[in-house]
Amino acid sequence: MRQVKVGFQGVSGSFSEEALFLYFKENFQTVAVQEFEDIFKGIINNDFDYGILPLENSSTGAIAHVYDLLNENEVYIVGEIFLKVKHHLLALPEAVIEDIKEVYSHPQGFEQSRPFLKRYPLWKLIPHYNTAKSAELIMKTRDKTMAAIASLRAAEIYGLNILREGINTNSSNTTRFIILSKNLTIKEQSNKVSIVLATKHTAGSLYKVLKHFAENGINMLKIESRPIPDKPWEYFFYVDFEGNLEDDKILKTIDRIKEDSEYFKILGNYNFFSGS
Amino acid sequence: MRQVKVGFQGVSGSFSEEALFLYFKENFQTVAVQEFEDIFKGIINNDFDYGILPLENSSTGAIAHVYDLLNENEVYIVGEIFLKVKHHLLALPEAVIEDIKEVYSHPQGFEQSRPFLKRYPLWKLIPHYNTAKSAELIMKTRDKTMAAIASLRAAEIYGLNILREGINTNSSNTTRFIILSKNLTIKEQSNKVSIVLATKHTAGSLYKVLKHFAENGINMLKIESRPIPDKPWEYFFYVDFEGNLEDDKILKTIDRIKEDSEYFKILGNYNFFSGS
Repeated sequence: MRQVKVGFQGVSGSFSEEALFLYFKENFQTVAVQEFEDIFKGIINNDFDYGILPLENSSTGAIAHVYDLLNENEVYIVGEIFLKVKHHLLALPEAVIEDIKEVYSHPQGFEQSRPFLKRYPLWKLIPHYNTAKSAELIMKTRDKTMAAIASLRAAEIYGLNILREGINTNSSNTTRFIILSKNLTIKEQSNKVSIVLATKHTAGSLYKVLKHFAENGINMLKIESRPIPDKPWEYFFYVDFEGNLEDDKILKTIDRIKEDSEYFKILGNYNFFSGS
Repeated sequence: MRQVKVGFQGVSGSFSEEALFLYFKENFQTVAVQEFEDIFKGIINNDFDYGILPLENSSTGAIAHVYDLLNENEVYIVGEIFLKVKHHLLALPEAVIEDIKEVYSHPQGFEQSRPFLKRYPLWKLIPHYNTAKSAELIMKTRDKTMAAIASLRAAEIYGLNILREGINTNSSNTTRFIILSKNLTIKEQSNKVSIVLATKHTAGSLYKVLKHFAENGINMLKIESRPIPDKPWEYFFYVDFEGNLEDDKILKTIDRIKEDSEYFKILGNYNFFSGS
């Protein structure tokens, strides 16, 4: 059996890689890329079969750039997985908390650990590519005044010590990852649809679109808005709702929504994670 | 006549300060603070009468942290103003483009100039507090390998040269700023209302709330979602709509929305900027 190739953004020890292991379980090969865009390029160019990307976090919200890229690229969501994200303050084994002067992490790492960081106003917070790369940096420079905000796995991989455990604000801090592929797949068990649309620029147009969900008894799960480039104060709306794209009711509703929209695109049909 | 005191986040030469000058015109004093939170604290502690903060950008979208703070603090929106944001690459007068190795800016400065920056893959992009502070840093270090992404005003204030003009992607790049105060004000000419609500956690609950706008002929201008801390995958919805809080129709609609919501808060009633 051929191994599937799966792209993730970041380096070994990143939360994306952890989510990938959790979703694919076995018989896969991983490919690390540097930027979110590279996941889309890799899928389109057949460098890998699937890609995994973080889409939203339960504490800090949408990862806006990934939403934009989903709309811009011909790539589909084929699955999702939720990962509890626990941040730790990592440093060299010989470092104590009083040594720390600079802290490296992804901006989301800082954001999710804000109250903890407020206790150390003298620390310089230096945004870095991602949490795992921040841990790698500390390992490489061997500077004991430097710390990273990253995962337990990153600590293990880069031989760092956990100076302070679980520094993120929210103990239920979870990131929703999506699995991407080149083709739209509709499986029998797919029960969640993601779309993006732009309403006509007239009064009440957003309501006009959303009412089709209610009129057809379709449960809208989430709505996210993003600006339309070059059209100030007009928005793309990303809507998740329950349903399968082979169900007649869903197809009819989509037709109605399309009629009342200026722009419409299906992002994918996949398995709804029922939550824990 | 007593001068009003107005707080803004950043340093002299920031876009916030520019928006402040544009809105208040005359007879005011400015107070610079370091963090978005300090604007709310300053208003609540009477350190200043008004505060100004960026809320969304036409290219990059909502400034999520400001949305969260609006909900968490007892402070009201009393006005809004739109500012065209033009980014330039600034450096010391003796520097040429080939000298540049490091670029400093607010992450939004990088985000809004992404295609330009892609042409220089070797540059190290170092996120800094804000665009104006990045310009100040170049002036202070006098290092000709360093550049900043900031405004024309920042170039003038810190004696820097414009190495590349207008590097932001989008020529219509505009930021919406809001004016905050301690008291909710309802003026006769106020025609825009901002609210935040959380729906009940049942199927179709978002639709149930939004239908009150349509049923009462109220024009919804925008909807933005933000996660509710400690309630993964539940959201606060920030809605802007046309209306005045002394209008009976608006008050009745708000009552209905409240009944169908788990949480409801008025953020302000102010003058809708009709656009340019």
